Amino acid sequence: MADHNALPLVVLTEHFARLPGIGMKTAERLAYYMISRSHEEIDSFADALRAAKKEIRYCSCCQNLTDREICPICDDDRREHDVICVVEGPKDVSAFERTNEYNGVYHVLHGLISPIDGVMPDQLKIRELLARIQKGNVKEVIMATNPTVEGDATAMYIARLLKPMDITVTRLAFGLPVGGILEYADEVTLYKSLHNRSEM
Amino acid sequence: MADHNALPLVVLTEHFARLPGIGMKTAERLAYYMISRSHEEIDSFADALRAAKKEIRYCSCCQNLTDREICPICDDDRREHDVICVVEGPKDVSAFERTNEYNGVYHVLHGLISPIDGVMPDQLKIRELLARIQKGNVKEVIMATNPTVEGDATAMYIARLLKPMDITVTRLAFGLPVGGILEYADEVTLYKSLHNRSEM
Repeated sequence: MADHNALPLVVLTEHFARLPGIGMKTAERLAYYMISRSHEEIDSFADALRAAKKEIRYCSCCQNLTDREICPICDDDRREHDVICVVEGPKDVSAFERTNEYNGVYHVLHGLISPIDGVMPDQLKIRELLARIQKGNVKEVIMATNPTVEGDATAMYIARLLKPMDITVTRLAFGLPVGGILEYADEVTLYKSLHNRSEM
Repeated sequence: MADHNALPLVVLTEHFARLPGIGMKTAERLAYYMISRSHEEIDSFADALRAAKKEIRYCSCCQNLTDREICPICDDDRREHDVICVVEGPKDVSAFERTNEYNGVYHVLHGLISPIDGVMPDQLKIRELLARIQKGNVKEVIMATNPTVEGDATAMYIARLLKPMDITVTRLAFGLPVGGILEYADEVTLYKSLHNRSEM
């Protein structure tokens, strides 16, 4: 933003531009939009920012973000607490919850092992996962990290740690996306889809 | 966002989702991003929101957004104050300033005449433009509204008002965009480009 713009607008624009995926032009548009809103709306946005930062913490069980000691999923007696789905981040929990098909609980790693980015296993919530399993009563751990180098490596790493514990460790199935077109699938996906074929 | 998410996160997500061009998924991503930032950063974002709303007002001369009585452009003696470029909004001022080629001043209408959307001439800053011109010392008014139905109508409306005032009223040139490909230009642009051709 050039010099001719008012300083408070420039400051607000720069704050928006720091958000992931938002460039200077979009940030400028958002800043202009905000000052066109009412004072009440601005105050409530500012309060929401502060409240979210202040009140959100990790669930002491699954490490997902929550505003309580134990998150609603871990606190839900109707869910199967002996099946743990291990995911990279809170957004993955939202994705599974949207399917309405999973009735187990989760464990959020808050990252993936990636030596290139300097993320080592002890920076993830793996210790908490092991402690949780050591308490007993866990039948299955589903490794639900992304099918990427880091996701696969993290899944492998944790699976190896769990091996001596006599628990079923599974990995999500990879294959053709539903509604996808075979012709456009990449070779690895197609191979996985062929390799993991099931009887009809 | 589903029930399992913590309320402060849901509230913050909804605030982001209210921004133009930001859907629920992006809003969720932004909310997660924000709570990963430091307390200082959150406070400074919240303060920037409030400050922008509180301190920004219309320049008493050109009606652009500013935090002073007179904006830096209107206050700049090195600019030609007898040439006024009339634009729809503050973003258009930024666009012209980025060219580094315009040395006149601006007048921001804050909208375009659009009876369909219920925007009538008296809701725009046209009265302020006339008052400014009536003070004298204006040589040229450049109508720089978009080449759309509303933009053209607004330019025509203001041009007609200025006719008795003995001022040169001009309109931006329309034609092929620089770097554009003739084959892909729409018919109207191509016609305008042909009609307004200049000698080489």
